[in-house]
Amino acid sequence: MKIYTGSINIKTSGENDIVDITDETQRIIEESKVKDGLICLFIPGSTGSITTIEYEPGLKKDLPKALEKIAPRDIYYYHHETWHDDNGRSHVKASILGPSLTIPIRDSKLIHGTWQQIVFIEFDTKPRNRRIIAQIIGE
Amino acid sequence: MKIYTGSINIKTSGENDIVDITDETQRIIEESKVKDGLICLFIPGSTGSITTIEYEPGLKKDLPKALEKIAPRDIYYYHHETWHDDNGRSHVKASILGPSLTIPIRDSKLIHGTWQQIVFIEFDTKPRNRRIIAQIIGE
Amino acid sequence: MKIYTGSINIKTSGENDIVDITDETQRIIEESKVKDGLICLFIPGSTGSITTIEYEPGLKKDLPKALEKIAPRDIYYYHHETWHDDNGRSHVKASILGPSLTIPIRDSKLIHGTWQQIVFIEFDTKPRNRRIIAQIIGE
Repeated sequence: MKIYTGSINIKTSGENDIVDITDETQRIIEESKVKDGLICLFIPGSTGSITTIEYEPGLKKDLPKALEKIAPRDIYYYHHETWHDDNGRSHVKASILGPSLTIPIRDSKLIHGTWQQIVFIEFDTKPRNRRIIAQIIGE
Repeated sequence: MKIYTGSINIKTSGENDIVDITDETQRIIEESKVKDGLICLFIPGSTGSITTIEYEPGLKKDLPKALEKIAPRDIYYYHHETWHDDNGRSHVKASILGPSLTIPIRDSKLIHGTWQQIVFIEFDTKPRNRRIIAQIIGE
Repeated sequence: MKIYTGSINIKTSGENDIVDITDETQRIIEESKVKDGLICLFIPGSTGSITTIEYEPGLKKDLPKALEKIAPRDIYYYHHETWHDDNGRSHVKASILGPSLTIPIRDSKLIHGTWQQIVFIEFDTKPRNRRIIAQIIGE
């Protein structure tokens, strides 16, 4: 049994950018030489999330539109009093979707559906460089 | 320390069916002979989610009703342009709730509250056969 | 490789109390003597959730306000028919945010952003004593 920690570095284009990290996740599994085990993807930061989606252009618009209902851009956020910034909605959405995703690995392959990709969602209001931590435990 | 991978096969009745998989999860823990460790439940597919709920008839109506506010059935989904299908709302809800749940095991028992069950939620618009992957790491 | 199970005991002040459990999580990592591995935080109970947030007074108001849109206090909940209680909205919010969070550990430190804290959110309608399970696998 061993532990392997890798990372995925991406540059996002700003608010609501959804980045497919499936291939990079699979690359880290290959680097680790782990055949069976768990991989935990985690974003250090409070304005982005990791989840899965069918990665196609339509849903890349539908999901942000739905989340806009929960945390609209044009309402008042108390967060802006604290820092005089503009990303209260980004924090709210990131806390709801969460910073972490754990997925089983079998026969050196990430388990996922044919139409299901692993994605990072940028909720912050400007482009960001993001470093996602990928930790594997297995054998 | 060992790794054990099992699966839970269910047939859902279609959109918003909530299936209690607590007993099946406990059965896989017993099969694995693991006393202490983590179990990760993962649905390969992008229109269903795994979470916990108090499994009683009222909440089985209340939760879908609340999610309908985020992704209503009668609005426009760009996803339908891509595939000419009808389940844009299913994808949106599944991405928000997530495909994965990790739970500690102690003394060969899944940890959960007395009024808390592990459930799969079908968001797709038709009945589906689902195979949930359950991977355990422990000793 | 070893497994260590600890717990975090907190007293919440009632509905929408958000409690920072980052330091307690770090304390359990130190107790465990694990240098690299995964920690899974899990709340047994169906009216509370674990996630991350920038822990500052503004967001402690913004997040509950946003969740009130999904599960408002003044609508009808079928759950109340079952038990004649008043916390249908608490259950709905807890199922959406989820009971579990898994985070990598490196060099005996919990990985998280500078402005990102680990929190328990109380959704129940009264103050509660909560015991969060923290299980670590690593070496």
